[in-house]
Amino acid sequence: MISLQTKKFTEKTAGHCDIIDITPRIHDAIKKDHSHYGLITVFVSRSTTPLTTIEHESGLIQDLKEFVERLIPPDHRYHHDDRWATTTVFRASGPALRAVHRDTHRQGKASLGTWQQVILLDFDNRPRTREITLELIGETE
Amino acid sequence: MISLQTKKFTEKTAGHCDIIDITPRIHDAIKKDHSHYGLITVFVSRSTTPLTTIEHESGLIQDLKEFVERLIPPDHRYHHDDRWATTTVFRASGPALRAVHRDTHRQGKASLGTWQQVILLDFDNRPRTREITLELIGETE
Amino acid sequence: MISLQTKKFTEKTAGHCDIIDITPRIHDAIKKDHSHYGLITVFVSRSTTPLTTIEHESGLIQDLKEFVERLIPPDHRYHHDDRWATTTVFRASGPALRAVHRDTHRQGKASLGTWQQVILLDFDNRPRTREITLELIGETE
Repeated sequence: MISLQTKKFTEKTAGHCDIIDITPRIHDAIKKDHSHYGLITVFVSRSTTPLTTIEHESGLIQDLKEFVERLIPPDHRYHHDDRWATTTVFRASGPALRAVHRDTHRQGKASLGTWQQVILLDFDNRPRTREITLELIGETE
Repeated sequence: MISLQTKKFTEKTAGHCDIIDITPRIHDAIKKDHSHYGLITVFVSRSTTPLTTIEHESGLIQDLKEFVERLIPPDHRYHHDDRWATTTVFRASGPALRAVHRDTHRQGKASLGTWQQVILLDFDNRPRTREITLELIGETE
Repeated sequence: MISLQTKKFTEKTAGHCDIIDITPRIHDAIKKDHSHYGLITVFVSRSTTPLTTIEHESGLIQDLKEFVERLIPPDHRYHHDDRWATTTVFRASGPALRAVHRDTHRQGKASLGTWQQVILLDFDNRPRTREITLELIGETE
């Protein structure tokens, strides 16, 4: 039988391109779920907190931060800042949703590669507490 | 019980990096759906019309347009244009799908942040009528 | 009745920004599925193999390769390379998942535009065999 379940957890973020590996929290949240395989959809209802998958390794995290700085420089004058006196919010117009597959043979864990983690980025200009929503679509016996 | 429903609507676009907030159309389309929570998947079967979420505010829309101009300049000579005599189609190789979560407590609306809208971009070089497909996966009583 | 099915296939990749049209493989994999419409989610459990949709045409493929070269130049010194002696892995921190809609009227095929294919990119620095997972959520009679 197909089941649909919602799980939520919160994460404290520092802002200013903070990059957090939320994979352990996702595994913790799905541990009590009874379905064996299916889809895990991760969602954050905020426009400054994109999600993606990457190898969460200090060198690569530094590369990603420098890439964002280069692509959307903080010293550029943005129309959005002129209007709202906020900063670098433009950076976050990326995906706020990520889905991963779950496999029968992975003992309930997400089917991620060994060097592949689900990361949450926060581009806000101050610390925040973010709510992350998981939607689990799975087959239960 | 889990249900799966398809809804469709059309939207007129001007092309040339037209950016349209389709959130009201999505809310209108799901109003008659009887499920209370679940996933809304938004899809456009065209390669020039990516979807994303952003705060739909005039300053930010202008920033996004300038960002696209800077990243993929229209005066650059593209191999695709050489072959097909079209322009700037390369710009649209972004995501043509976006999914949002829906919550029991949101009175049937998508769980978007206050400053977070679902936008459709159209990079075609002339006005078009686009068909947007919603796939609703939800729990009904 | 809603059904959930997993299908898998492998694809040989050359690495170094290899771009492969996997649409025929997807259509082949879903041919034996009995559901008529729904969602097809495509997933690769590797951090160097993003998926997207694009017109798979030689001019555009060349444009995409040159765009990646310009955005993330291979001769730049990356922190990740300093630590792990690998190259250009940073390029692949893109989406490793893509979902497409399937329609009753398309004879079991994915609802893609005529000039829209699902492509797999591989940024690894050597040839690989990649496993692609499809999760089919559909309505069966």
